[in-house]
Amino acid sequence: MTPERLVAFSDGVVAIIITIMVLEIKVPASEDADTFASLKPLIPTFLAYLLSFIHVGLYWNNHHHIYKLVKHVNGKALWANLFFLFSLSLIPFTTDWLGEHYKSEAPVILYGINLLLCGAAYQLMASILKKIKGNESLAGSLGKDIKGNASVILYILGIAGSVFYPYIGIMVYIIVACIWLVPDKRLEVNIIEVDE
Amino acid sequence: MTPERLVAFSDGVVAIIITIMVLEIKVPASEDADTFASLKPLIPTFLAYLLSFIHVGLYWNNHHHIYKLVKHVNGKALWANLFFLFSLSLIPFTTDWLGEHYKSEAPVILYGINLLLCGAAYQLMASILKKIKGNESLAGSLGKDIKGNASVILYILGIAGSVFYPYIGIMVYIIVACIWLVPDKRLEVNIIEVDE
Amino acid sequence: MTPERLVAFSDGVVAIIITIMVLEIKVPASEDADTFASLKPLIPTFLAYLLSFIHVGLYWNNHHHIYKLVKHVNGKALWANLFFLFSLSLIPFTTDWLGEHYKSEAPVILYGINLLLCGAAYQLMASILKKIKGNESLAGSLGKDIKGNASVILYILGIAGSVFYPYIGIMVYIIVACIWLVPDKRLEVNIIEVDE
Amino acid sequence: MTPERLVAFSDGVVAIIITIMVLEIKVPASEDADTFASLKPLIPTFLAYLLSFIHVGLYWNNHHHIYKLVKHVNGKALWANLFFLFSLSLIPFTTDWLGEHYKSEAPVILYGINLLLCGAAYQLMASILKKIKGNESLAGSLGKDIKGNASVILYILGIAGSVFYPYIGIMVYIIVACIWLVPDKRLEVNIIEVDE
Repeated sequence: MTPERLVAFSDGVVAIIITIMVLEIKVPASEDADTFASLKPLIPTFLAYLLSFIHVGLYWNNHHHIYKLVKHVNGKALWANLFFLFSLSLIPFTTDWLGEHYKSEAPVILYGINLLLCGAAYQLMASILKKIKGNESLAGSLGKDIKGNASVILYILGIAGSVFYPYIGIMVYIIVACIWLVPDKRLEVNIIEVDE
Repeated sequence: MTPERLVAFSDGVVAIIITIMVLEIKVPASEDADTFASLKPLIPTFLAYLLSFIHVGLYWNNHHHIYKLVKHVNGKALWANLFFLFSLSLIPFTTDWLGEHYKSEAPVILYGINLLLCGAAYQLMASILKKIKGNESLAGSLGKDIKGNASVILYILGIAGSVFYPYIGIMVYIIVACIWLVPDKRLEVNIIEVDE
Repeated sequence: MTPERLVAFSDGVVAIIITIMVLEIKVPASEDADTFASLKPLIPTFLAYLLSFIHVGLYWNNHHHIYKLVKHVNGKALWANLFFLFSLSLIPFTTDWLGEHYKSEAPVILYGINLLLCGAAYQLMASILKKIKGNESLAGSLGKDIKGNASVILYILGIAGSVFYPYIGIMVYIIVACIWLVPDKRLEVNIIEVDE
Repeated sequence: MTPERLVAFSDGVVAIIITIMVLEIKVPASEDADTFASLKPLIPTFLAYLLSFIHVGLYWNNHHHIYKLVKHVNGKALWANLFFLFSLSLIPFTTDWLGEHYKSEAPVILYGINLLLCGAAYQLMASILKKIKGNESLAGSLGKDIKGNASVILYILGIAGSVFYPYIGIMVYIIVACIWLVPDKRLEVNIIEVDE
């Protein structure tokens, strides 16, 4: 099986997830609902949306990078990909909860657990894809996935920190986003080599 | 007619169905809405979502498998596919109802009827596709669709059981999901043969 | 310009329209919300959804058929297609209103106007596509678009009838759906000729 | 990296944005909810939706045009495209706010800022794409992007005008939409040259 349709379906699901989050930002219904002041209570929700947009965007970018090197998928990989999409599909819910209660432990911890689940599902999918015959170039390029492993460790630290002080968790999740915003030279180089 | 666009359109519809279900899981609005305890009433809804995600995912997987072997479609097949997508599109509604009232007969029965409708629509579509000239390899591979037929029988048993005790239905629907989670060797083998 | 991306984008928009309509069917919130009896008030909404699903489905089928024969598009055709998609995007709203007030004149008339708008936008798009160099085979196949013209006339009759008695309009809209459910031999034949 | 998947993902996101806006137009719930009169309060929301549909449509058209000439993308371009999609994803929110309070300064100003953000993000993406090796034909065709620059200037004028009188802003945003509705001969000519 070739990965074309898996990729197209994943793009569809990720496109929906990244877009419907904004539906949770409701227009103010207060008495002064036509002033900029009325938007002030929406700022945490908006920032939570921005953080999640970046996280979903980076997972899409990584998905894009990994499948550039994938020649074959099997039934197991299809389900691993679905599990990864399921993890991502929970982000609109945890983002919404985080935006409403960013000062409380539980929402910050759950948001971190959701990100950790996405990271773990992504690693699981990658490790299944690597073992499929024909995907040797992927195995090579992912040899030392420093960023991926660092993210997982940071997510765990963030969750642990949130138990004491929620702002620690939020800071850590922002740091992970920043790490990924720097393009992954390692994979880009490999793709160029494979293309040539 | 070639099936490329039918497949792309179906992927879009299924991607939306599988994703919008999560929108029904609303952030708690109770007084203790920032604690893990406040999420407790959402657990049945979440589990119903998980069950439906797996069911929609398996139908997408099967759709993927079947159209790998389809070379031609006709007007009748287009409408059969639309009927299949229509059945799937009802799942967010029946899932939502099941999540809210999983202890009552009616929601469990309706959820089973919805799954049965999806299964029947899928079988109808497969039987139409098999008869189209050029799809002989599909006809061969689906010769004895044990899993497909078993699912339909199990759905009916689940619906019947729910009339007496709703938990029976839920257990049966979970069993069907588990059956399908095991990758379909039969079709995978055939695809490899066709590819070679 | 080739129509590939226009087609993919249209598929996305139509997939969303056809799927989000079902979100308007809300789970009952009455006291007996876990019985089949509580679903009874949803029946008109469900039937309105079914009617709209068929209409959107038939427009997607027609879009599919027409673009099979289109080799080139231009800026004008892109906007005509967007106008067509805009008409379709209003269907979830008019369907919802129809489902809630199917016995009243205004919602039935507005639903008919919406369908008429879709039909007119589709004809406009087809006539623009026909004039583009390279689409001669399309021009030939659409020579006498009996179904298309009949639909437009029936929509107008339905709207006019609804002014006196809303049921007339609903009956006529159902008849149009039935006319289109019969596959369009004319275009299918032409596609086969073109393919060969 | 080739832009195929970036384009498909962008199409998905834009298709969702352009479609979910209509979900904000809620069926009337007043006592006379089955009359045309009950729709009157929805007219501003509907017109705001129409204006945003055209704006999102024109950005999609431009995206379509630009990527016709793009042969290669890099990690930076992926993120610039995501930033552009993020700007677009805010339009359903600002449109909804504009529709409800089109006579107030703040919503008209914010809507203009949103459009300006989209325009700026688009220009940023175009300037990044131009510098990538292999996209020389794009660089040539965008040499003097009169429409693009004019839009940005008009958006700023509209925002400034809204501070004094909101109708000025709305008029300017409509003018920008009209400017773009005229197909871009400049790019179309270039594409033909490149194709030949």
